[in-house]
Amino acid sequence: MSKSIKKIGVMTSGGDAPGMNAAIRSVVRTCAFHNIECVGIYRGYEGMIEGDFKPMNARSVKGIINKGGTVLKSARSKTFMTKEGRKTAYQKLTEANIDALVTIGGDGTFTGAMVFNQEYDFPIMGIPGTIDNDIFGTSHTLGYDTALNTVVEAIDKIRDTASSHNRLFFIEVMGRDVGHIALNVGVGAGAEEILIPEEDLGLDRLLESLRRSKASGKSSSIVVVAEGDKIGKNVFELKDYVEEHMTEYEVRVSVLGHMQRGGSPSCFDRVLASRMGVKAVESLLENKTNFMVGLLHDKIALTPLDKAVKGKSEINMELLRVSDIMTT
Amino acid sequence: MSKSIKKIGVMTSGGDAPGMNAAIRSVVRTCAFHNIECVGIYRGYEGMIEGDFKPMNARSVKGIINKGGTVLKSARSKTFMTKEGRKTAYQKLTEANIDALVTIGGDGTFTGAMVFNQEYDFPIMGIPGTIDNDIFGTSHTLGYDTALNTVVEAIDKIRDTASSHNRLFFIEVMGRDVGHIALNVGVGAGAEEILIPEEDLGLDRLLESLRRSKASGKSSSIVVVAEGDKIGKNVFELKDYVEEHMTEYEVRVSVLGHMQRGGSPSCFDRVLASRMGVKAVESLLENKTNFMVGLLHDKIALTPLDKAVKGKSEINMELLRVSDIMTT
Amino acid sequence: MSKSIKKIGVMTSGGDAPGMNAAIRSVVRTCAFHNIECVGIYRGYEGMIEGDFKPMNARSVKGIINKGGTVLKSARSKTFMTKEGRKTAYQKLTEANIDALVTIGGDGTFTGAMVFNQEYDFPIMGIPGTIDNDIFGTSHTLGYDTALNTVVEAIDKIRDTASSHNRLFFIEVMGRDVGHIALNVGVGAGAEEILIPEEDLGLDRLLESLRRSKASGKSSSIVVVAEGDKIGKNVFELKDYVEEHMTEYEVRVSVLGHMQRGGSPSCFDRVLASRMGVKAVESLLENKTNFMVGLLHDKIALTPLDKAVKGKSEINMELLRVSDIMTT
Amino acid sequence: MSKSIKKIGVMTSGGDAPGMNAAIRSVVRTCAFHNIECVGIYRGYEGMIEGDFKPMNARSVKGIINKGGTVLKSARSKTFMTKEGRKTAYQKLTEANIDALVTIGGDGTFTGAMVFNQEYDFPIMGIPGTIDNDIFGTSHTLGYDTALNTVVEAIDKIRDTASSHNRLFFIEVMGRDVGHIALNVGVGAGAEEILIPEEDLGLDRLLESLRRSKASGKSSSIVVVAEGDKIGKNVFELKDYVEEHMTEYEVRVSVLGHMQRGGSPSCFDRVLASRMGVKAVESLLENKTNFMVGLLHDKIALTPLDKAVKGKSEINMELLRVSDIMTT
Repeated sequence: MSKSIKKIGVMTSGGDAPGMNAAIRSVVRTCAFHNIECVGIYRGYEGMIEGDFKPMNARSVKGIINKGGTVLKSARSKTFMTKEGRKTAYQKLTEANIDALVTIGGDGTFTGAMVFNQEYDFPIMGIPGTIDNDIFGTSHTLGYDTALNTVVEAIDKIRDTASSHNRLFFIEVMGRDVGHIALNVGVGAGAEEILIPEEDLGLDRLLESLRRSKASGKSSSIVVVAEGDKIGKNVFELKDYVEEHMTEYEVRVSVLGHMQRGGSPSCFDRVLASRMGVKAVESLLENKTNFMVGLLHDKIALTPLDKAVKGKSEINMELLRVSDIMTT
Repeated sequence: MSKSIKKIGVMTSGGDAPGMNAAIRSVVRTCAFHNIECVGIYRGYEGMIEGDFKPMNARSVKGIINKGGTVLKSARSKTFMTKEGRKTAYQKLTEANIDALVTIGGDGTFTGAMVFNQEYDFPIMGIPGTIDNDIFGTSHTLGYDTALNTVVEAIDKIRDTASSHNRLFFIEVMGRDVGHIALNVGVGAGAEEILIPEEDLGLDRLLESLRRSKASGKSSSIVVVAEGDKIGKNVFELKDYVEEHMTEYEVRVSVLGHMQRGGSPSCFDRVLASRMGVKAVESLLENKTNFMVGLLHDKIALTPLDKAVKGKSEINMELLRVSDIMTT
Repeated sequence: MSKSIKKIGVMTSGGDAPGMNAAIRSVVRTCAFHNIECVGIYRGYEGMIEGDFKPMNARSVKGIINKGGTVLKSARSKTFMTKEGRKTAYQKLTEANIDALVTIGGDGTFTGAMVFNQEYDFPIMGIPGTIDNDIFGTSHTLGYDTALNTVVEAIDKIRDTASSHNRLFFIEVMGRDVGHIALNVGVGAGAEEILIPEEDLGLDRLLESLRRSKASGKSSSIVVVAEGDKIGKNVFELKDYVEEHMTEYEVRVSVLGHMQRGGSPSCFDRVLASRMGVKAVESLLENKTNFMVGLLHDKIALTPLDKAVKGKSEINMELLRVSDIMTT
Repeated sequence: MSKSIKKIGVMTSGGDAPGMNAAIRSVVRTCAFHNIECVGIYRGYEGMIEGDFKPMNARSVKGIINKGGTVLKSARSKTFMTKEGRKTAYQKLTEANIDALVTIGGDGTFTGAMVFNQEYDFPIMGIPGTIDNDIFGTSHTLGYDTALNTVVEAIDKIRDTASSHNRLFFIEVMGRDVGHIALNVGVGAGAEEILIPEEDLGLDRLLESLRRSKASGKSSSIVVVAEGDKIGKNVFELKDYVEEHMTEYEVRVSVLGHMQRGGSPSCFDRVLASRMGVKAVESLLENKTNFMVGLLHDKIALTPLDKAVKGKSEINMELLRVSDIMTT
């Protein structure tokens, strides 16, 4: 028989993403709505082990819905990967009378959560927060939509200078080992070519494509490269290769870097975070555990954490065709 | 037996929306990809009647994917509502050897298209372009996602001044007679109350809600009002009513107005527009007609135009509950 | 002989403006740098009278440099206009051992400060914070540069829809009774006409100008109207007048409203605020009083408060000529 | 005796900068205003040598005031550095009946212009367009203000993730061999340390400063590094050095890159460009030559081109002190 939940802990872990604060706010306020206590756990599993807790009420999360980053901070914890680390964490949670956990993060975060749940039967709900959109069980992770806009705006700026100078730009974007961001911003920014880990274009076809683009009268070109792509060892080597084999272009490289993770969340991410927080808390109150809250076909839905971790988030290969057609 | 399509006309009609240019670009380039001619029709049905046409190729649509508005201009045409008007339009299309039409717009645009199709058996595909998201058969109309971000950013700015002065703001947002924009930006901007046509809150409950919000320690409040809402006759009368019955707040009104229609489209709208343009052209080439291209469950799908026009785009009432919980 | 200053109060008053938080941060940190205590006074003179004070140190102002609004809140105080009000304020300041005051605001704020200084010989420094740029003794008030960008971006969005529909837009912008904002955004947004209080164009010349613009082939027009302009009684009456006398255009009105006051400050405003805060505190420590810190010829300079209040901030009439040339 | 000018050529050269299009527009429209012909010269001196000219009228520059980059394209020309190259250029200008030149660019652009003027007595006016603000004779070059905002917004985003993870970020910003951008964005973004070529902080003082910042309770730090700074050989080596000597921080590097050059110009840059274009054309019409149009003490003023090139644009060292105070 399951016990009644009276105090929920909320934390963020792994890489931060826009919308995490909106999710924290939603968890805290949903607790308040149901007259449940809520405790913020700082710096992910690291803070859990150290007992770095702070009670939170509806006022604590005022004015954060539109802020990037995470007010609870985030960290990657090696200690939590050890049995002792998790034991300490459990003791700290118990001492603080925390009955259940909402953990906001990605793969690594959920893997840790599952192990912890298995060892201590501790009720857990996951909320997918990462700009990479690499989680199974949700069409959108928190921060992904915002990152798409951030990247597209940055590429628009680079396009200004590229087309003023007849240059070829290789732009490396985030996404770990999946191509969601690269593929969407590539289409959205009108990139001439998109290199993603899911499809090995090959260096020869890249050169061919660039030559065709040049021949068709385009004076500048943008190639979006996913950080996980392995066509060249990295984007700088890619530049060297192309410069060696094509003299038609001046080649430049831009690695967009960490600015992709920040910024005020888009309306979509704020709304999604609000919906997910409500569902996470209410699912715990219904004694569900070990699920991730996701968005499937525009509806909030639960996926078992192990499926979320093991499953593969498929990219939309239709977009590669759309990109090909757009750049013909 | 259907004839083979060799020249497609593309036009925008009704209120403009961000993403229309990206859709035009996609239609033009998909035609080029399939070696079909493409013709831009200026100022919607008005320009069709006047024969205001311009051949477009892949280069014609260079650099417009990230521009708001529509390079083909838009208009509302009274002449096209007459039999003669449509007859002239048909003659002009025939003279220009245009075989089929992609029309980008909303309800009114599609209604005109259907009548025209019935009268002249002219192949037509619709693409939903309006910030209001009031079209059945698609979860998102072009421009809607962009408008949500535009509005949320504007409300964030107003929040700065509202919270500096302990004020109550009524903010009127667009959406014609549906509450999609109001509901989503209300949640996304953390509005204390959201007034939409789909739910009559009633003036008494509004006052009660504002009093509760004040009592809970909030020093400022944002109320988002859909332009189609009829709780007060308009947002200024609403202000007067509240000021009469509550002296706790200084009340201000902001009508966001036409800036909501403009701006560079979000990545989502650019990608959606690109996908829709491909589907519209390729569906015509497959001799389909009288459909609207939409997004359903994240996939591009066709809906018969008459269903798109007659059907009702449902708002997500779950969001009203989320909003209630967030503002408790 | 002047006494040594050990504790400075800082406050914001009047309409809020982007950069006020950056100025507060600068005042607080400059106090910390000089080992002086600093106290935040909430809600302007109103909070001063109520003794609504809070000690602030370098950590208190963390993360606010890029936030719009004012963390100290603002208000307009009628009580402070009375002798008793100011007496109470003086008592509260004395009880809290506050030796000197940095007051951030506009005309009204400085007038109050001067009277208070005369009555109680209380050391005061003013920092000009208002988007209207209507203060003598500084080329830029805090928030003005940010507001120019906010407004220009909004007009760019409206231009998208105006040019898609061949419309004429009257856009009312802030500025109280001066035309700084209108004149600069008018030039910056490429407005066809700019109506400011400093120059009475006259309705006839406006019509003539619009007709010339139409005749020259322009299909859409933007007219920027300063809120203080009196050519028509207001922007809606202006619309009615033009529609009555010109049928060439569909006319629309947009009142940009309070969003002009908010938003993250521009780099210029953040840097200016930082410089002004340092100068305000260090001037008090040098026993200067009754000055406003301003920017003159790119340098930080002091102006006596009475001159700042009485003087007239001249607009740059050269810009009207530039606008005329640009729209020929 | 000077001849009357009837046709002016306008070009952009060197690195592109936001505001260049606004300046082109202003030159073209001022010519139209004075009934002078205007010719656009493409790709800087390279296009001049090739005779890549296009007549421009008021309509040609419609809708470009808010666009980044340059519609006339830009390039660096080696051929123009040769006597023959300049001879060909002169012939092409003469053949096209171009009497005078407005050249928009930086140091290199102006140096070329002066040599050309000396050799052929060809009337020339320069407009400073570069984000680096490294030109003597103007307080602001075109694009500088916009770049400051672009960079500050990017650093704000990085701050989100830095403070969520307690990280130290080295952020490399543009500016060639001067520290204007670094210094201003460093203050504007609240950087803990600013490394500019004009002041050699030294690696020891940097470490000391970072340790002090950490000790004062700051959990994250931003160090802004001008690309021209030579404290470390480059920003990656700087990272390595600090990681070797401090274990308190996780260190990350972000090189903002070419996005700093793009984007829609700020209101300030649009207005400045408009003013400069008017002055450039009207000065040529007054038979002035060999000057650069600049902004000095908020007024448009001319500086001889050789002074503009030889003079040194001084950075505001007061800002380094302000930065020190802000980060105490």
